Amino acid sequence: MTNAAIRPVRILGLDPGLRRTGWGVVAVSGARLVHVAHGMIAPDTTLPFAERLLVLFEAITEVIALHAPDEAAVEETFMNNNAASALKLGHARAMALVAPARAGLPVAEYAATVVKKAVVGTGGADKAQVGWMIARLLPTAGKTTADAADALAVAIAHAHARGARALRGAA
Amino acid sequence: MTNAAIRPVRILGLDPGLRRTGWGVVAVSGARLVHVAHGMIAPDTTLPFAERLLVLFEAITEVIALHAPDEAAVEETFMNNNAASALKLGHARAMALVAPARAGLPVAEYAATVVKKAVVGTGGADKAQVGWMIARLLPTAGKTTADAADALAVAIAHAHARGARALRGAA
Repeated sequence: MTNAAIRPVRILGLDPGLRRTGWGVVAVSGARLVHVAHGMIAPDTTLPFAERLLVLFEAITEVIALHAPDEAAVEETFMNNNAASALKLGHARAMALVAPARAGLPVAEYAATVVKKAVVGTGGADKAQVGWMIARLLPTAGKTTADAADALAVAIAHAHARGARALRGAA
Repeated sequence: MTNAAIRPVRILGLDPGLRRTGWGVVAVSGARLVHVAHGMIAPDTTLPFAERLLVLFEAITEVIALHAPDEAAVEETFMNNNAASALKLGHARAMALVAPARAGLPVAEYAATVVKKAVVGTGGADKAQVGWMIARLLPTAGKTTADAADALAVAIAHAHARGARALRGAA
């Protein structure tokens, strides 16, 4: 195993949405995962659209300043076939990508099915199963909203993916 | 007429796109329009997605620092029914909204048909007609790319809209 896989690394997971963006930070050392913090950002829906995006951008920037993650991972949120709602989601998701990039973090992206498979073992898991597994995998996390649980799940998926890369690198 | 309509105001127009984002700044005093600057931002397509967004964000932030606009206007770019491309466009468009909002500018949004109607007189105008009218309305602009011309057109549309508001306010 390489040093990279043993040195503790903090990962910020983000589950973006215009109404609610979930975030979660975990620390990973090899196969060991520890909960650091989690929360949810819900910009005032009466604000002008650009201001709602700014609230997301600044809140994510604040989370990064406070919890000092080394890397970020963003969920490729479920997308229906409605172009208008996909456009809106794209705006919110861009905040989850650009705020960490601006802070100098590498940003990985994971499909929702990959995230669920990493946490529950099946890509078809529902929100309740994800929440249940988050409580098992991160027992010190306490109560989490569905958005924060999804964000912690993205962080865990990234921890698994980088762990697998480190093992491949050492082989 | 109110003072607000006479005092020169600088408007930043933005025509957002992931491959090419056009920008243009005009100064408006009452009905008088003067070209200030324009350009185009084309992030390296080989960069990771979050980095491409960051290039757009930082370049728009730089344009604002350099040309000190008072207000911003963003085009509601044409959207086809493809949800995947709408999602991508949303990411790029979010940079055009959040960078000015972060700089403290009010950000207005205009449908493409409204922009064309303000500049050419008909919502169905094509790119060549918009470019031709921009050259007439802003004779000191010199050569403009289609993206920059569209961005200047958005700025002009906003100048018209705020002029109309000022007149209504004075009535």
